[in-house]
Amino acid sequence: MSEILYPFGGNAPTHHALGKDLLGGKGANLCEMAGIGLAVPPGFVIPTPLCAAYYDAGGRLPEDLMAALPLGLQHIERSVIGKGATGPVFGDASNPLLVSVRSGARVSMPGMMDTVLNLGLNNETVEGLAARSGNRRFAYDSYRRFIQMYADVVLGLDHYLFEDALELLKDDRGVTLDTELTAEDLEGLVKAYLALVEREQGAPFPQNPALQLMGAVAAVFGSWRSERAAVYRRLNDIPESWGTAVTVQAMVFGNMGETSATGVAFTRDPSTGENRIYGEYLINAQGEDVVAGIRTPQYLTTASRVGAGAKAASMQEAMPEVFAELAATFDLLERHYRDMQDIEFTVQMGKLFILQTRSGKRTAKAALKIACDMVDEGLIDSETAILRVDPQILDQLLHPTLDPAAERPVIAIGLPASPGAASGAIAFDSETAERRAAMGEEVLLVRVETSPEDISGMHAAKGILTARGGMTSHAAVVARGMGRPCVSGAGSIQIDMVTRVLRVAGRDYPEGTVLTLDGATGEVMTGRVPTIQPELSGDFARLMAWADAHRRMKVRANAETPQDCRTARQFGAEGVGLARTEHMFFDATRITHVREMILAADEPARRVALAKLLPAQRADFREMFEIMAGLPVTIRLLDPPLHEFLPAREADFEDVAAAAGVSVAALKRRSSELHEFNPMLGHRGCRLGVTYPEIYEMQARAIFEAALDCEIAPIPEIMVPLVATARELELMKAVIDRTAQAVFSERARTLTYLVGTMIEVPRAALRAAEIAEDAAFFSFGTNDLTQTTLGISRDDAARFLGVYVEQGIYPKDPFVSLDIEGVGELVALAAGRGRAVRPDLKLGICGEHGGDPASIAFCEGLGLDYVSCSPWRVPIARLAAAQAALKAR
Amino acid sequence: MSEILYPFGGNAPTHHALGKDLLGGKGANLCEMAGIGLAVPPGFVIPTPLCAAYYDAGGRLPEDLMAALPLGLQHIERSVIGKGATGPVFGDASNPLLVSVRSGARVSMPGMMDTVLNLGLNNETVEGLAARSGNRRFAYDSYRRFIQMYADVVLGLDHYLFEDALELLKDDRGVTLDTELTAEDLEGLVKAYLALVEREQGAPFPQNPALQLMGAVAAVFGSWRSERAAVYRRLNDIPESWGTAVTVQAMVFGNMGETSATGVAFTRDPSTGENRIYGEYLINAQGEDVVAGIRTPQYLTTASRVGAGAKAASMQEAMPEVFAELAATFDLLERHYRDMQDIEFTVQMGKLFILQTRSGKRTAKAALKIACDMVDEGLIDSETAILRVDPQILDQLLHPTLDPAAERPVIAIGLPASPGAASGAIAFDSETAERRAAMGEEVLLVRVETSPEDISGMHAAKGILTARGGMTSHAAVVARGMGRPCVSGAGSIQIDMVTRVLRVAGRDYPEGTVLTLDGATGEVMTGRVPTIQPELSGDFARLMAWADAHRRMKVRANAETPQDCRTARQFGAEGVGLARTEHMFFDATRITHVREMILAADEPARRVALAKLLPAQRADFREMFEIMAGLPVTIRLLDPPLHEFLPAREADFEDVAAAAGVSVAALKRRSSELHEFNPMLGHRGCRLGVTYPEIYEMQARAIFEAALDCEIAPIPEIMVPLVATARELELMKAVIDRTAQAVFSERARTLTYLVGTMIEVPRAALRAAEIAEDAAFFSFGTNDLTQTTLGISRDDAARFLGVYVEQGIYPKDPFVSLDIEGVGELVALAAGRGRAVRPDLKLGICGEHGGDPASIAFCEGLGLDYVSCSPWRVPIARLAAAQAALKAR
Repeated sequence: MSEILYPFGGNAPTHHALGKDLLGGKGANLCEMAGIGLAVPPGFVIPTPLCAAYYDAGGRLPEDLMAALPLGLQHIERSVIGKGATGPVFGDASNPLLVSVRSGARVSMPGMMDTVLNLGLNNETVEGLAARSGNRRFAYDSYRRFIQMYADVVLGLDHYLFEDALELLKDDRGVTLDTELTAEDLEGLVKAYLALVEREQGAPFPQNPALQLMGAVAAVFGSWRSERAAVYRRLNDIPESWGTAVTVQAMVFGNMGETSATGVAFTRDPSTGENRIYGEYLINAQGEDVVAGIRTPQYLTTASRVGAGAKAASMQEAMPEVFAELAATFDLLERHYRDMQDIEFTVQMGKLFILQTRSGKRTAKAALKIACDMVDEGLIDSETAILRVDPQILDQLLHPTLDPAAERPVIAIGLPASPGAASGAIAFDSETAERRAAMGEEVLLVRVETSPEDISGMHAAKGILTARGGMTSHAAVVARGMGRPCVSGAGSIQIDMVTRVLRVAGRDYPEGTVLTLDGATGEVMTGRVPTIQPELSGDFARLMAWADAHRRMKVRANAETPQDCRTARQFGAEGVGLARTEHMFFDATRITHVREMILAADEPARRVALAKLLPAQRADFREMFEIMAGLPVTIRLLDPPLHEFLPAREADFEDVAAAAGVSVAALKRRSSELHEFNPMLGHRGCRLGVTYPEIYEMQARAIFEAALDCEIAPIPEIMVPLVATARELELMKAVIDRTAQAVFSERARTLTYLVGTMIEVPRAALRAAEIAEDAAFFSFGTNDLTQTTLGISRDDAARFLGVYVEQGIYPKDPFVSLDIEGVGELVALAAGRGRAVRPDLKLGICGEHGGDPASIAFCEGLGLDYVSCSPWRVPIARLAAAQAALKAR
Repeated sequence: MSEILYPFGGNAPTHHALGKDLLGGKGANLCEMAGIGLAVPPGFVIPTPLCAAYYDAGGRLPEDLMAALPLGLQHIERSVIGKGATGPVFGDASNPLLVSVRSGARVSMPGMMDTVLNLGLNNETVEGLAARSGNRRFAYDSYRRFIQMYADVVLGLDHYLFEDALELLKDDRGVTLDTELTAEDLEGLVKAYLALVEREQGAPFPQNPALQLMGAVAAVFGSWRSERAAVYRRLNDIPESWGTAVTVQAMVFGNMGETSATGVAFTRDPSTGENRIYGEYLINAQGEDVVAGIRTPQYLTTASRVGAGAKAASMQEAMPEVFAELAATFDLLERHYRDMQDIEFTVQMGKLFILQTRSGKRTAKAALKIACDMVDEGLIDSETAILRVDPQILDQLLHPTLDPAAERPVIAIGLPASPGAASGAIAFDSETAERRAAMGEEVLLVRVETSPEDISGMHAAKGILTARGGMTSHAAVVARGMGRPCVSGAGSIQIDMVTRVLRVAGRDYPEGTVLTLDGATGEVMTGRVPTIQPELSGDFARLMAWADAHRRMKVRANAETPQDCRTARQFGAEGVGLARTEHMFFDATRITHVREMILAADEPARRVALAKLLPAQRADFREMFEIMAGLPVTIRLLDPPLHEFLPAREADFEDVAAAAGVSVAALKRRSSELHEFNPMLGHRGCRLGVTYPEIYEMQARAIFEAALDCEIAPIPEIMVPLVATARELELMKAVIDRTAQAVFSERARTLTYLVGTMIEVPRAALRAAEIAEDAAFFSFGTNDLTQTTLGISRDDAARFLGVYVEQGIYPKDPFVSLDIEGVGELVALAAGRGRAVRPDLKLGICGEHGGDPASIAFCEGLGLDYVSCSPWRVPIARLAAAQAALKAR
């Protein structure tokens, strides 16, 4: 039995050393909780390898598992201590054992996979349950729930059939709430459900509890490969090969009357990180009622209830003893796991059961506060604190919130389910949200409530608004995980899906109307409300300081405007890793000179135009150098194809022709001469410098003159782009060095500077040894290196890259997270070959990947000197670099 | 002295074992000829390392060389056996030794570098020469030639200054030919030349022979880096680092009267390969008079003279004894070198001197005939014959000649200087030829005579026509080397460079007029005369048979049309290495269905359109399979971006909209949706197959159905393009295999087929091990692999690739000859990784490089199974593959 089932609770041995990989997160936690003496309902775990075995067997339960299930049930039967002499027995007509069957992968995938509750009920055992509990209504309510869930999850029947039957019954009885139905009503409903199943599947509902169990286990395994689970895995980097474990556990009931309850809780506030119990419960309910957000739950603590101005009694008020036991359990769990926990519990007729505990998802702000507080509380050390915070979530902190000075045309208020502000056009379904977002529009997904089918739409949206559901509803949990602002349970809004209109306070907002959400206050506003930069908390600074102390790699920013440079410094950048000089060329006052330069017929004419650009470039560089005083600044010489600077519209052609003193015809001819079939692979980068050295000469002169003008000397690192051969760098370095000598001699002063190159085409990586002879540094331009290594144009990839990621061709978008197997090999090879020739070769990365934690970890492994990323991602990179350094130890 | 000068002739030791790398081609040959006892004028060689030393010293002669020169001159003085007791002495006023100073690199670079003759003459020695020779006119003619040459080569004065002075003198004297000038005239001319030098350079002409010698040696070294030499080296793949040797040799004179002569000869006919003496001589002339083509020379043999209908006496008639000695020397030389020789000789007052011998340049036809004849004559074996023929020159044989049935509007006849037919627009200078050719126009370079400055223009032209010069003129020699048809010495044509008109028989042909040349007959025709395919000679078949016997790699063709497939088989292709299925899509009757497929809104609509294409594709494949009966045929599934099939012009849009039943607006919208910024890196190749598997399914079905329809079963090799990951191939292989099973089951027959992939993006090369798991073969698509590895779009490279090759960034166009250092490393790595996983992995190359001899040699080194190239290059590839195999032994 040891390899097929792992029992827990009762007298079972403790298995928590076996871990989540084998038992799944839920199973491992139950085993661990049982091990530390918590009141966990007994059960057993079918470990993750059986999931693969299930698929290997063509979607059938392996025979050894089928043989082991009765042994697992025996363990549960023996371990459920009845108040009387005899415990419940699975399938026993007078005292039936009911079990839950749940999924549990290595990491939590909330709502993604299937669960079956109340399994073991049939036409006979339901009577036993009624007799034992003395509550016929509860027994038939459980049975009708079980049939509905089993029919949906295991038999694959449409759940609306059952919902329709329920609604019909309520209409019949003239009631509006489920709870108003009597035991007899529910008994009739069970009959209707059983008939419905038989009609739909052509066979009766399975009455044999053993067959029910096998069906449910198989269905949970099957749900691992459901489409919604696959989408979630893709968005969260979870490999399909992991599989899910299945936990079979004795049912406990939160719906056995007014002394029963069920709830979910976090040991600290997952939104703010405050050290106070945060959670919700529902009296006389089963767990799915809370999570699914169908009924709006009550608060756990009185303080929360009062804070929210709610009236329904808190658990602290309604069940003070049980609440005290719960609070003590929370302390025990936090001390044990040394992390904030997300707990599901049930109270069955006054007795508390812990159903599940796991590390709780949290906002960025909460993650920082919890990590810092736990260091202060002595629960964890600062290194653990660094490793606790997912760098990606810092993004939430670094993005704008609503300007407090701005007018807020509030039209509705819901729950502040996930912080941050977002503006966008209303989209009423996921497909619309995805379609509009793909066209570059900012959208808000607005739904009555969300379900796992909405994952893609939530990902595409800037924010989420729901009319129903609490702080732990699907929408809220998923939005917090994604870092999307969310307002949930905004009960005053109505959504008319026929006319596709949002209706609130008598006014209609058709689909496409722009709204703004404040996920921190729950406010819903019309139009686009201005935003401001958030003040970063003291916890942020503390964590960053710890990270900086453990970091080996430097973090620079890709920046060229004064604004970006200032933001970069504010976020802790230690230099500029990529200043794109062409951005300076687009300035309205300069573009004319740029165009004059491009239109020049020969070198002398080109030099005349370049001379006009020189002062402007010099001024740009000087401003940048002064902001980055004393820090290294890597300046990439002109890179894009020249035609990018030429006008595109007819009117522009006329303007430019007039300004440049040429005819429109001549301008168009030159523009068409410059047309390229594949500009990415065309006349750009150092190819411009090789053919028109005077352009790079002007830029080098501007850099040196600006540097000499600065009070605090910068360290210019001049970077030659798109080098593929050592000779290109040799030629361009000669131009730069010659210009340096000329400027130094004119000014009678010198300056330290470096000349290096981008490594952004595969050939450069291959020939790194030769190239290193003339390069003081390599900066891996992984955007272009990805384009050339994979043969994929980033601008054109949208049409197939989605399908590619879905089909598992690339695990993630390779322009977001470095393709380590392909591009990574070239980076590693270039680093090795370059350093073999020049041991002090400075190595950095300046593609988008410089701000991606997985890519940063790869760079740490290669011993790169720095990563460079957009200013907004600098804190993410600092933390990720520290984590990588800690993990590399 | 042994390391700085190598003496030859007289009693000098023989040095011919030292070879051309050290002594240069000319020096090594002179040493070798002296060694086998030929009458070579004595001299010494300054070896090639001194050329580098000269440049290292900043363009000055190294001191040890200056010290050694007098010793070298002593050797010559001691070795020139005078008829009397005392030999001539360098600088001696009564009996001066005159020397020539010539360049000589490892390989011949005809006319590219400088030469100085008659060195040692000054105002005193000229009188000694006059007295000794008893020919004052000769002495002063030599002196004035020397001054003119020295002033041009060493002093860098414009040669037209001297020509003008000469013309002025002839006008003065009322004569038209140089030979009509008297000794006194020439004495006066010398005075004028000396004054001219003094005026132009501000210093008198150097009278000290020792200084003259140092100046000339330095000038020869200096000419190694002249622009024309650099262009020649680039066109001929000669590294600059080789340097040139300098040969200083006693002068012998072909201009000492009617018993003196000078000439050039080939031991066999360099045009046809016939085993007969082929050459020209001039009585009473120096060598440059023959080579420069200024005087039209006389034939060597009586047979040639009679054959050409010429009147001037052949050498065989004019100097029968000397001719007999010359013919005997030719035999000696061919037996010694076992190759056809190109010889320069001088007869000085009845005595024959051999000045130079080297392997003679020859036409493709001659190369084949000579190689075969020499095998028959027992001079060489068949392996040597294979290695003797440059595969590139076969191109000459494989291209069209004029249709004998076509009308030939002949307007002039010149010498048949280089075979082949060419039509093109007249270009009167190199620059015009290059410019028009760069715009895609076919041009003929038409010049009075060509000079080394015309190399680039000759390369750009399809053919060359000159008004002056013989069969060994510059134009003729260079054109044969380049494989360009050439008609030289068409004396009836006049070229008016002011009005830029070719005038012949009273008619004007302005620049740009299309003419046709027949290099085999010397005919010049108006307009474009139709051409036909040449019959390949028996020698060609013999050499190819020898090559095939020694070849390891198979040679396939890139072909998809029936015509191309037939040509490929005729040229000996052993299969198709690349059939591009998209070419079949462009057929006028199919493009509508193709467009319908592209415009389809969903898969079912796409399948409807694909079903219409199926019969046509099946028919294409069947025809191809039947032509290539039993041979492997590699079919690449659809590769280009779909928008390539959409219309471009307004009228086309209307036609297509009507045919496809959609609106023009819809068509344009779809077309603009399909627009890509970088289509090379866009939605193409297997990305089409992954997103629209039904396209590849249709193509696979067409292949299998066609294959089963054939009587002789072909071996289809289905190739998936643009794979970058193992998963792509896995997915596409599944589609193909599933289709195969479906077709086999419908037909109740099976077939052997392979599924493999192109390796054409760097990532595929890097991940070759994984990809090989699903690939039966790799075909290296080196066109795209070059584009992605170098980051260069071939379509856009023209704007900079010329500069790149000039600047030495790439030694050759990397789309013509594989970039072995960069792309080659990826090919090697993929071959190694793929074969490590699958030892029987079939490897081939199907880029343009498959027909390039250097690239083929590289493929042989990697152990590739085959190369595939355009049908026209198949024979080149067969020969190159044999050479590579022989050299690899």
